[in-house]
Amino acid sequence: MVNVSIVGAGQTKFGRHPDYDLRELFSLAANDAIEEAGISPKDVEAAFIGNLSADRFNNQCHIAPLMVDFAGMAGIPATKCEAACASSATALRAAILAIESGQHDVVMAAGVEKMSDQPTPSVIETLAMAADQTFEAALGITFPGIFAVLAVAHMHKHGTTREQIASVAVKNHANAVHNPLAQYQKEITIEKVLSSRMVAWPLGLFDCSPISDGAAAVVLVRTKDARKYTDAPVKIIASTQASDTMNLCARDDLTTLNAARTAGQKAYKQAKLEPRDIDFAEVHDCFTIAEIIATEDLGFFKPGEGGPAVEEGRTQIGAEKPISTSGGLKAKGHPVGATGVSQLRELYLQLRNEAGKRQVPDADVGLAHNVGGTGATCAIHIAQRW
Amino acid sequence: MVNVSIVGAGQTKFGRHPDYDLRELFSLAANDAIEEAGISPKDVEAAFIGNLSADRFNNQCHIAPLMVDFAGMAGIPATKCEAACASSATALRAAILAIESGQHDVVMAAGVEKMSDQPTPSVIETLAMAADQTFEAALGITFPGIFAVLAVAHMHKHGTTREQIASVAVKNHANAVHNPLAQYQKEITIEKVLSSRMVAWPLGLFDCSPISDGAAAVVLVRTKDARKYTDAPVKIIASTQASDTMNLCARDDLTTLNAARTAGQKAYKQAKLEPRDIDFAEVHDCFTIAEIIATEDLGFFKPGEGGPAVEEGRTQIGAEKPISTSGGLKAKGHPVGATGVSQLRELYLQLRNEAGKRQVPDADVGLAHNVGGTGATCAIHIAQRW
Repeated sequence: MVNVSIVGAGQTKFGRHPDYDLRELFSLAANDAIEEAGISPKDVEAAFIGNLSADRFNNQCHIAPLMVDFAGMAGIPATKCEAACASSATALRAAILAIESGQHDVVMAAGVEKMSDQPTPSVIETLAMAADQTFEAALGITFPGIFAVLAVAHMHKHGTTREQIASVAVKNHANAVHNPLAQYQKEITIEKVLSSRMVAWPLGLFDCSPISDGAAAVVLVRTKDARKYTDAPVKIIASTQASDTMNLCARDDLTTLNAARTAGQKAYKQAKLEPRDIDFAEVHDCFTIAEIIATEDLGFFKPGEGGPAVEEGRTQIGAEKPISTSGGLKAKGHPVGATGVSQLRELYLQLRNEAGKRQVPDADVGLAHNVGGTGATCAIHIAQRW
Repeated sequence: MVNVSIVGAGQTKFGRHPDYDLRELFSLAANDAIEEAGISPKDVEAAFIGNLSADRFNNQCHIAPLMVDFAGMAGIPATKCEAACASSATALRAAILAIESGQHDVVMAAGVEKMSDQPTPSVIETLAMAADQTFEAALGITFPGIFAVLAVAHMHKHGTTREQIASVAVKNHANAVHNPLAQYQKEITIEKVLSSRMVAWPLGLFDCSPISDGAAAVVLVRTKDARKYTDAPVKIIASTQASDTMNLCARDDLTTLNAARTAGQKAYKQAKLEPRDIDFAEVHDCFTIAEIIATEDLGFFKPGEGGPAVEEGRTQIGAEKPISTSGGLKAKGHPVGATGVSQLRELYLQLRNEAGKRQVPDADVGLAHNVGGTGATCAIHIAQRW
């Protein structure tokens, strides 16, 4: 069991932010979270910040002290955590461990990424470095191609259809309409997804999450202290992480992510819950097929049932298992280092009944599933209404 | 107080390793540490790995799962921690918090960097990204220049001489002669340092730590369990970290590093010790002047006395306060992400009486001081013989 609660959450709008640099984006989210928690920046004792590669996107290493200094938290221990697109979920986990250790009482977990400073081919090249450079990336494959391999395997093994895969994008865009911080607040049709420019068959442009800038932050305290900060804290009751071999050729099965299944099983055990107890989930839909695999890996649907489930509307808000109510990576946007903590912000809003028109009715327990690369990392958090 | 012990430590030789890639270097150190702890790779439950920028040095992000997979620890939670040249001390701190949290029993802290894949100007450019890109690096200053500014300030304020600064290199080379894993196992004279090629006045080539490849790893367990693994575990009794503004122009005093003083004071408080209780220390001598500042920031000598102290031999092995007995970054080498954990390996050896000809007599308590950038991060650990 984990005994840490979120008492404040903040996020920038995801999208292109030519007018803000990395430290400014971070500060916007961090100060939102601090204000929401009713504290001063000086009350934060330590920070763990997820970021994939400011090294390459912004020519800046060593971002953690730079971020906390600019956001008014100068002097505190500040560490960057990196695990590709799961960076900020691993930062969140490190922050939770810091509180559970007894060394700190108030800790910030955050994530930030500013990808739009670089031309698109450079961004794609950097992202490919989250795959195995020696056995994958150096041979020319990039992430749409890697996830296309998983999609084809899933179609072959389970009969998953192109329409089922495309349904993920349609649902997530519909959810994002009601998320004012989403990059794309517009609905799309299945025809639009199917006719979009092909990227790597069967995945077209609308099967891919976008290039985004953005930041997200949460303030964490020990659960027993949480009521001092807010009347409606959100308890984190599970925090797990697992890894897997990076190169696909070393895996037995391309239709599932081992790390997600392992982290999921550990999370259910830690929370003493089962998949059916989860009221809604934010999953890592970096590509549409990834959401279908996620809903199966997490035990929401049996292997092969994830495709039919999304097509039949079973993962919409108001249906049996709402998935990616924020709009997901697909429509909310995917500033990679910020995504994991942004998922927790969605859980925080939903579990406080503050998600507006995308509110899941009677949401008591939510799960966040954040994947790095092609699943060489997966970190899972389960949160509960107090 | 911290209640975590080191039960195994490993390190590669530091230097140029054209025949090993990143995962191979990591595995050499990791498996040394695992073997020393008398465990199997499968017994390690989680890993935190320090690395500055495999992103730029090796075109590889997301290194943590790749490293643990190759070293036989596939599946475990594995997170990269980055805080410039203090990366692996921050990884060590995260690993300690993971054990103190009660979530894990056996955790690896490690660091790895392979810098020699890139031409020297690219390495210098990447290292400069550990300074503030907006206010420092983009203007053209690189690290020798930044530390030269500190050196000049120290000379101006305290009368520190060029000879005193050069004495650091002479001492550390003398120590490295007895460290078989050091990059440079050869003595140098003060004349050699003073006549070496000027890099940024007053710092010449022999005032600068080299470009290195290498890895280091330690296996950590709860102190109460440590005797199950080894007869001579080494207790970590303090683990602290602090940050500071990154750009020098925002600091009040260029002759001291705030983060080092803060982390040091917290570490002494945590360990219930005073500077005089420290028998020896590994400090972050990325440039010779940095060691003089470190010995003052840590309270071993008063401000302005660090220069005379090293010149008078007071920091040699066998003298009152042996500093950088391993040879330090200057002569042992500085594969940046590996340095912090490598310092702990030196503490481990010294506190087990296994440091051979560089053994500090009656070493009971050692301190490691790992700095990121120009001190925007400092992490300090104090270790004690059991």
